[in-house]
Amino acid sequence: MYKIVFMRHGESTWNLENRFTGWTDVDLTEKGVKEAKSAGEVLKREGYTFDLCYTSVLKRAIRTLWLTLDEMDLMYLPVKNDWRLNERHYGALQGLDKGETAAKFGDKQVLVWRRSYDIPPPSLEEGDDRASFNDPRYAGLPKEQIPLTECLKDTVARVLPAWNEEIAPQIKAGKKILISAHGNSLRALIKMLDNISDEEIVGLNIPNGQPLVYELDADLKPIRHYYLGDADAIAAAQAAVANQGKAK
Amino acid sequence: MYKIVFMRHGESTWNLENRFTGWTDVDLTEKGVKEAKSAGEVLKREGYTFDLCYTSVLKRAIRTLWLTLDEMDLMYLPVKNDWRLNERHYGALQGLDKGETAAKFGDKQVLVWRRSYDIPPPSLEEGDDRASFNDPRYAGLPKEQIPLTECLKDTVARVLPAWNEEIAPQIKAGKKILISAHGNSLRALIKMLDNISDEEIVGLNIPNGQPLVYELDADLKPIRHYYLGDADAIAAAQAAVANQGKAK
Repeated sequence: MYKIVFMRHGESTWNLENRFTGWTDVDLTEKGVKEAKSAGEVLKREGYTFDLCYTSVLKRAIRTLWLTLDEMDLMYLPVKNDWRLNERHYGALQGLDKGETAAKFGDKQVLVWRRSYDIPPPSLEEGDDRASFNDPRYAGLPKEQIPLTECLKDTVARVLPAWNEEIAPQIKAGKKILISAHGNSLRALIKMLDNISDEEIVGLNIPNGQPLVYELDADLKPIRHYYLGDADAIAAAQAAVANQGKAK
Repeated sequence: MYKIVFMRHGESTWNLENRFTGWTDVDLTEKGVKEAKSAGEVLKREGYTFDLCYTSVLKRAIRTLWLTLDEMDLMYLPVKNDWRLNERHYGALQGLDKGETAAKFGDKQVLVWRRSYDIPPPSLEEGDDRASFNDPRYAGLPKEQIPLTECLKDTVARVLPAWNEEIAPQIKAGKKILISAHGNSLRALIKMLDNISDEEIVGLNIPNGQPLVYELDADLKPIRHYYLGDADAIAAAQAAVANQGKAK
């Protein structure tokens, strides 16, 4: 039997400001820093240890991982930064206030963009400053792999190869793995692991900074899963995520 | 022409307490944290950027690197943690106060242990709590590779394969590299690069937290080298290191 631990990054400045983030490289808030440290504390208290870590190339997930590893006294662990674990790209909505966007387009349209499986938000223009073509962290990628918007289906399509080619073989090799990533890249992994339908996955809310343990059988099929830590805090964090898209 | 940047970690708690550290995993002091951030600032100001970073498996070097990368907004860079870049193992002196050790054995004997090329300090016993055999970060290594003490010659012998097998090919592949390491693992690299004699290398003092740039030709032979940053601060840091072994 294998175990893998997933973690959504702690609260980011744009979670707090209620803005669509996507690939924008915003940092953690003070609360997010605390969440990440708490995640490290609970993992340490529960006796977890790891051999290898994965995260995205976005600092809110990287800092969450660093703070967790620091708390666990495991700063020396190998960390692989994989762009395929990035948050879903939010297209032309990136940077916009979620409440204002909802007031302008209606809660319903925003919910379509946020919660439909295969309808992406409006695309960024190629020349938009928010496009990632000139960002050195994506310099090794063919241009057609760098998104200008994504629906969750697109995110799933780029996350799964990271699992199949990179992460799954390491689990089968016996490596104990911690993944620090984002709401939608984690949805992609959980959809695949638990065989969740396109309709249901969009309603799955993953709380910030709460370690989520998956126990897997020899074929990497889930046996069970559970969050570590305080049940009330987890429920509150899940409710907070579910409410983010609504107009205020 | 290639460029590589070396950095000795910022001041550690045992630098401050004047104790022999070696492979003991002590953290940075507040001053050390500031030194690491300053290193990041100066690298950023001077327009440096990197593709790949190396550090040891000891947190004073890792944290120095993390703080530097954070300051440069390059947290997403790949980092390879290589035990071969660890500080020289200080054997049975690890944990002892440098001044007390000097008072007990004499400045001269301590200077022999600190500054001779091929005379190691007394070895740790195999069963000593300070030995690294049960430390998970060295679990993949054959026991005979895990030192119980080292002279600088021993450190050179384990550092050079990391350069030859791992780092040099990456430089030749065009990767811009930052190495965050320790006084003696950096001495080992500089001895090799500048072909410094066994007698002279032991007198080379590398200041904490000051980026040291080496420009290398196509065969990785040094063209020139220089520290970045404030000349007075560099000189003061070098003098501080030179004085560490003396009885107070």
